[in-house]
Amino acid sequence: MGLLVVGSVAFDSVKTPFGEAEDVLGGSATYFSTSASYFTDVSLVAVVGEDFPKKHIDFLKLRNIDTRGLVTAPGKTFRWKGQYGFDLNEAQTLDTQLNVFETFKPDLPEEYRGADIVFLANIDPDLQREVLTQVKDPKLVALDTMNFWIEGKRDSLIKTLSQVDILFINDSEARQLTGMPNLVKAAREINSYGPRTIVIKRGEYGVLLFHGGSVFAAPAYPLEDVFDPTGAGDTFGGGFMGFIANSMDFSESTLRQATVMGSVMASYNVEDFSLNRIRDLDYKEIEARFREFKKLAHFDDLD
Amino acid sequence: MGLLVVGSVAFDSVKTPFGEAEDVLGGSATYFSTSASYFTDVSLVAVVGEDFPKKHIDFLKLRNIDTRGLVTAPGKTFRWKGQYGFDLNEAQTLDTQLNVFETFKPDLPEEYRGADIVFLANIDPDLQREVLTQVKDPKLVALDTMNFWIEGKRDSLIKTLSQVDILFINDSEARQLTGMPNLVKAAREINSYGPRTIVIKRGEYGVLLFHGGSVFAAPAYPLEDVFDPTGAGDTFGGGFMGFIANSMDFSESTLRQATVMGSVMASYNVEDFSLNRIRDLDYKEIEARFREFKKLAHFDDLD
Repeated sequence: MGLLVVGSVAFDSVKTPFGEAEDVLGGSATYFSTSASYFTDVSLVAVVGEDFPKKHIDFLKLRNIDTRGLVTAPGKTFRWKGQYGFDLNEAQTLDTQLNVFETFKPDLPEEYRGADIVFLANIDPDLQREVLTQVKDPKLVALDTMNFWIEGKRDSLIKTLSQVDILFINDSEARQLTGMPNLVKAAREINSYGPRTIVIKRGEYGVLLFHGGSVFAAPAYPLEDVFDPTGAGDTFGGGFMGFIANSMDFSESTLRQATVMGSVMASYNVEDFSLNRIRDLDYKEIEARFREFKKLAHFDDLD
Repeated sequence: MGLLVVGSVAFDSVKTPFGEAEDVLGGSATYFSTSASYFTDVSLVAVVGEDFPKKHIDFLKLRNIDTRGLVTAPGKTFRWKGQYGFDLNEAQTLDTQLNVFETFKPDLPEEYRGADIVFLANIDPDLQREVLTQVKDPKLVALDTMNFWIEGKRDSLIKTLSQVDILFINDSEARQLTGMPNLVKAAREINSYGPRTIVIKRGEYGVLLFHGGSVFAAPAYPLEDVFDPTGAGDTFGGGFMGFIANSMDFSESTLRQATVMGSVMASYNVEDFSLNRIRDLDYKEIEARFREFKKLAHFDDLD
């Protein structure tokens, strides 16, 4: 049974050199599940406050996302406020209000517990581990994290990683987690923590996939207009994991295609604020951009 | 007749977190011509001082580089001193002594003036233009530059670019030259200055090739041990231009292969100080790493 994601559903306020958006739909689980919904059935575990409008839940349902695990708790929805400079590579957080997320304890609906594939979006590693105790027999577990947990809960994170197959992580975070400036060495070190597949996200520079002793370098799509990188990492994760869940094939060939599919989805996401660009894509568009990536990376063998 | 390069021959003193080297052979034309010499005949135009040892000239001759344009002038050879931090992405210049380079006026030997392909390494754009007046009928002209000339001699640089087919430039310099943070837009702007092909170098993130409305993203080779990035850009240029000069084919397929061949040569160069790693490569090694790049970038089409 499908792909399970646990993470945040939030309101974001974002300012970039190209415009701004206030109190728009955001959150790691929102971006992830919307992106993954183009490829597979997704079950969502998250919490929102009483201020969360029905229209956003209707949107998730429209994308065929199972929202039985989306709990409404007394209080307000998680809020994040941030801004980006011209290079759009790193967000500066201006304000974080955890609100209902502060006391969030994921409790999986019975129907979710048979999930084959689990994505633990960027939340407290204690909670990530708690989720795993509730899933009976997952075939594949992936995890995303961030500098905040690497600094504040390193031991818990390392403990969680021992139960994880795929780690999604930024390049600077991979260096921070391992203390190794070289990414090849950092990936090997992370292997020793548990994950056999390491996906290192490098923003506008693309992605490195380390798997079974080989490396795959996926380019990012050079876009002429990038408006808002918020959610690009989770949208990438959703495309990647959705593609894998659809095929249930964990071979290197599929992992590489999944890396490109994640990049395709992320390339759409950054073209507009919030989830606006990925709300209603046509699968033919997605395939067409996958082929664009193929052209982007193609070169002929030597004679 | 072959590939002509004009640029610097220098002594470098380099410190990285992994070691240091003092007064070692360096300079843009040295890296370029050594790298290109694996693919084609190279003619070198540069100046050295009376302190320049015969063993270095013997090395260049051993690589079959035509050194009739390498002038020895009264005084000392150009010296550069720099250091790198852990990320190895940007050099910090500690000292520059132009010495004989200060009054360098390139005067091409008669035998050089029929060159088919010209590479104007990173020198004063006035001198780059002066060289072009001395070459009879070049089929292809490429140019490299840097922030120093973009800031100090922008008008002269733009004038030179109008006579150039291929521009090699760093990503930050492309943004600086055009005032455009987006590289797709920056490349199109540079097209309007003259060059029809723009090669944007991004260090450990690889290279973007803009040509005829299409983009090619070449990855950099993820190395476990990078010792010294000095000369990587010129070694890249040498592999690129040498490959083109060898085939005398300027099609997009060849330009893409040349981009990868440049990356292959640069990946060897950073593995040791000075030109140590690229002094004596076997062509079979070069082909093998080209195939590694092919694996690195490969992913299957969708079914």
